[in-house]
Amino acid sequence: MYKAPITEIAFTLSQVCGLSDLQKTASFSEVSDDLFEAILTEAGRFAGEEIAPLNRVADLHGTPFKNGEVSTPPGWKELYKAWAEGGWNGLSASEASGGQGLPVMLNTAALEMWNSGSMAFAIGPTLTMGGVEALEKHASDDLKTTYLEKLVSGEWMATMNLTEPQAGSDLNAIRARAERNDDGTYRIFGQKIFITYGEHDMTDNIVHLVLARLPDAPAGTKGISLFLVPKFPVQADGSLGPRNDVRCAGVEHKLGIHGSPTCTMIFGDEGGATGWLIGEENRGLACMFTMMNNARLAVGVQGLGVAERAYQQALAYALDRKQGRGPGDKGPEMSSIARHPDIKRMLLAMKSRTQVARVLCYACAHAIDMSHASESAEDKAFWAERAGVLTPLAKAVSTDFGSEVASLGIQIHGGMGYVEETGAAQHLRDARIAAIYEGTNGIQAIDLVLRKLPMSDGAHVKGYMSELRSVADTVAASGLSGLSGVANNLSQALDALGEATEWMQVARSEGRTPEVLAGATPYLRLFGLTVGGVLLAKGALNSTGVHAHAAPQRALLARNFAETLLTETLALKNDIVTSSASILEFDPESLAS
Amino acid sequence: MYKAPITEIAFTLSQVCGLSDLQKTASFSEVSDDLFEAILTEAGRFAGEEIAPLNRVADLHGTPFKNGEVSTPPGWKELYKAWAEGGWNGLSASEASGGQGLPVMLNTAALEMWNSGSMAFAIGPTLTMGGVEALEKHASDDLKTTYLEKLVSGEWMATMNLTEPQAGSDLNAIRARAERNDDGTYRIFGQKIFITYGEHDMTDNIVHLVLARLPDAPAGTKGISLFLVPKFPVQADGSLGPRNDVRCAGVEHKLGIHGSPTCTMIFGDEGGATGWLIGEENRGLACMFTMMNNARLAVGVQGLGVAERAYQQALAYALDRKQGRGPGDKGPEMSSIARHPDIKRMLLAMKSRTQVARVLCYACAHAIDMSHASESAEDKAFWAERAGVLTPLAKAVSTDFGSEVASLGIQIHGGMGYVEETGAAQHLRDARIAAIYEGTNGIQAIDLVLRKLPMSDGAHVKGYMSELRSVADTVAASGLSGLSGVANNLSQALDALGEATEWMQVARSEGRTPEVLAGATPYLRLFGLTVGGVLLAKGALNSTGVHAHAAPQRALLARNFAETLLTETLALKNDIVTSSASILEFDPESLAS
Repeated sequence: MYKAPITEIAFTLSQVCGLSDLQKTASFSEVSDDLFEAILTEAGRFAGEEIAPLNRVADLHGTPFKNGEVSTPPGWKELYKAWAEGGWNGLSASEASGGQGLPVMLNTAALEMWNSGSMAFAIGPTLTMGGVEALEKHASDDLKTTYLEKLVSGEWMATMNLTEPQAGSDLNAIRARAERNDDGTYRIFGQKIFITYGEHDMTDNIVHLVLARLPDAPAGTKGISLFLVPKFPVQADGSLGPRNDVRCAGVEHKLGIHGSPTCTMIFGDEGGATGWLIGEENRGLACMFTMMNNARLAVGVQGLGVAERAYQQALAYALDRKQGRGPGDKGPEMSSIARHPDIKRMLLAMKSRTQVARVLCYACAHAIDMSHASESAEDKAFWAERAGVLTPLAKAVSTDFGSEVASLGIQIHGGMGYVEETGAAQHLRDARIAAIYEGTNGIQAIDLVLRKLPMSDGAHVKGYMSELRSVADTVAASGLSGLSGVANNLSQALDALGEATEWMQVARSEGRTPEVLAGATPYLRLFGLTVGGVLLAKGALNSTGVHAHAAPQRALLARNFAETLLTETLALKNDIVTSSASILEFDPESLAS
Repeated sequence: MYKAPITEIAFTLSQVCGLSDLQKTASFSEVSDDLFEAILTEAGRFAGEEIAPLNRVADLHGTPFKNGEVSTPPGWKELYKAWAEGGWNGLSASEASGGQGLPVMLNTAALEMWNSGSMAFAIGPTLTMGGVEALEKHASDDLKTTYLEKLVSGEWMATMNLTEPQAGSDLNAIRARAERNDDGTYRIFGQKIFITYGEHDMTDNIVHLVLARLPDAPAGTKGISLFLVPKFPVQADGSLGPRNDVRCAGVEHKLGIHGSPTCTMIFGDEGGATGWLIGEENRGLACMFTMMNNARLAVGVQGLGVAERAYQQALAYALDRKQGRGPGDKGPEMSSIARHPDIKRMLLAMKSRTQVARVLCYACAHAIDMSHASESAEDKAFWAERAGVLTPLAKAVSTDFGSEVASLGIQIHGGMGYVEETGAAQHLRDARIAAIYEGTNGIQAIDLVLRKLPMSDGAHVKGYMSELRSVADTVAASGLSGLSGVANNLSQALDALGEATEWMQVARSEGRTPEVLAGATPYLRLFGLTVGGVLLAKGALNSTGVHAHAAPQRALLARNFAETLLTETLALKNDIVTSSASILEFDPESLAS
């Protein structure tokens, strides 16, 4: 079914993605390897034994909507309760708010496992964690006192209410409105769509974070404020008051993540939902963005989690299913299809993409942790920039890989992969949304080229490429069997990335933004493949001592990724620097029928 | 919804894929351009107005199974009746059998449109056409007289019964058995799975073609015979007799093509289903393979048909949906998302892949027609080899592109693409099977490298590459604005294909079959991209005279494909020649948990 790859996760955290740097900081000096592994092991057990078995149950049941109420899949509520009682919800929330104050790296590793168990389940808590973060950073002490503890414990869940029918990628277009009450609260009106876990029966209260405009707000994104709108506002005595004027008007029928209710929410059609301001008026988008960055990483982790599960399932199927004869196989029996070279190719493609998603997500989490835990302002800023670069890579590459891996998993299953009972198809249906929400992967690419490349006048990305180059040089110098070809591929990939980056920087500085935008998507992939290839090789290199047993497997994976995917990097560079003219000349309006 | 791209289809047939060669043959000298266009136009009308509106209806309804009976979606039966009465089923069946004797090229173009209308609908008749072909070529006159006319008219439908639980890609493992009766008929026993339209309420009779073994048959594929097993055998007086001993035991719940019943069929659990031998005993697989080649093309056309529909839908959505501002757009209104460079990139990627699928499928159909219509045995053999090369390309590339295009279509729709009401997700769900059935795309790649590359001692493929090179040279010499870069990319792609082919031929001749198998999938893609790129450029080149208005669009498409996809060819070549070692070293069995 699903067995958490604890060894690989722990190795990737400690030997590839810099956990030990983190353990040298004052904030995390007490986080020992033993503690980490104990927590990972228990999370893996919970994900494999408790969550994973409900994944298909939830897919079949969905979240039926009736009379304003949403019912969740059988076992879902009990599962959530057990999960929250395990303390998993507050893993990286601050101790001041009742959390455990552990690194984002650890929470990211745990999130991988929750998502492997069931993406539809894990997405609920993911949003609560985002809500906690927004409140920790921006809410008044009163709001914190009233709501934070129960959100950290998971007793209540939180939602994010951004999207409206006319405002998806473009939040400028938000129309939900807020009016001031005399007592300092607000009345919220409007319709929000695609609200994940907007309504359900899993917790006694649901805390909605809602973007809306004040009557006198400036136009555009500078006039958006963030409000806390509880389903049941907390009374002065701490009890839950009467139901707020917010209701669910329906749930979407989606391609996948059927266990996660995607709700249309109506605020204020009986006079206004009572809301409390978070942060300052008109500064809501900034509050939301803090949180959205981590949510983007969390979505990348969805791609990773589903990929790992799809890989495990395809591997098990390939070992079990017998058809034809593998090369050199004799005797009367058919071979397992895992012995066929084309199946091996697909299994390796799944495995290496999954591991690349993992290194990208964990490296991003590491940068976020370091941006908090570093001592000096300079270091904090450095790591914040690094997290800024890695966030779109982790989000977009991992979610693209999530779909690619799930689709390969179907292919390995042959006809059985197309039959829903097998579960292989569900992974693709589930994973497919992750490339869309929390900023489509196109938006991630635009974020990378327009906001992240210019950081520190381009110096940050340049420095990062030097770091990657130095790892590649170490690989080259290692003389490790099987890695010499990899070193060569890495060097070529870094050359391609360097040239493409230079092209991007020049085009941007010359005001040729449309060309930059036209090349953004292949640029992001080029960047992600290169970082991924370097970190896979680093994993092979660092498989020494107690990790030495897995060194050949890791070298093989790095090699295969270099041979089959790093080879793409030159093509991507050529695409970036040549295709913008044809893209910009293309005039879809001339084709309107 | 769906508007058949008649102009593009007619242009591709006549100016890119060689229809005029066909019109020079004696068999097809009467098939005028006018006749072609009249038929295409009416097919397009039927597909757009009659079939397309039922696509989502069928997706929602599925094919419920109850008490051995399968009910089809509302309107399905009437649609099929109208379609068959239109004479569409026998378009390329021989006139002797009651068909219209028109080229496979024309039927392929029509099939594209039926599949754009609804893949779940079109697949039924596709199987009947395959059955007709098998009977025309291999059945006794008696069987032909009894069954062929009603299959050609579409009054009855046919099915193919190959797969069994233990026998999917490997037909060696077939266990269904046949026993001889004294009267020359046979009793058939066994279970078949994944039988498309195995049971339904659309026609009065269903003619099953079934692979089974005789008691004294040799082991393996040389001991398989093909039988005709009607649901209702025809009596001596021409009326339908009592129901045969074959029944449907259930239908699969699949990822997509919900309107197409995928049945488990049980033969002979009440004493044996009566069957009639088709062709000779133990020669059934050869009969089936004749038909399977054309079925493989037909499946490629499914990828094409769904891609075209997904593209049209994404284009319409992108033109309609407003978010943000396109480069240079001013004023208070949001721009259509079709003005954003990243959306243009995706639309072009969809459009160029769709057109490449089209040229591959039509070129394959052309080769099949020429293999029949050519005068000399030598020419027939040449074109049969050409069809042999193009069949795996048309099947695998078009179906991979079908899924890629459908997935891009979802991405362009953003969150709406994940909501089933939109229909964008259905295209991916439907298209995804086409890479699996009728020989997985991995099997297609193996067929290409093991059976097609060696044809005429490698001379056929070599000659084909020279032909492609000469088109590329014409492009280079044309001096056409925008095509000089394309010529360059084509030349590089042909170099890569040449090197990879040489590597394949050497490896095969040296008995390094596992290496050949490890590189088969990227080799097929490399071959397909190169042929596709050449034929797109040819289209741009031949857009003269009455076609000149579309020349700039076609040049743009060829350019964009060259810049974004032909660039991959070098990477694929490097993959092919370097990755086999890591693939073959990979030992999935060591990872069994």
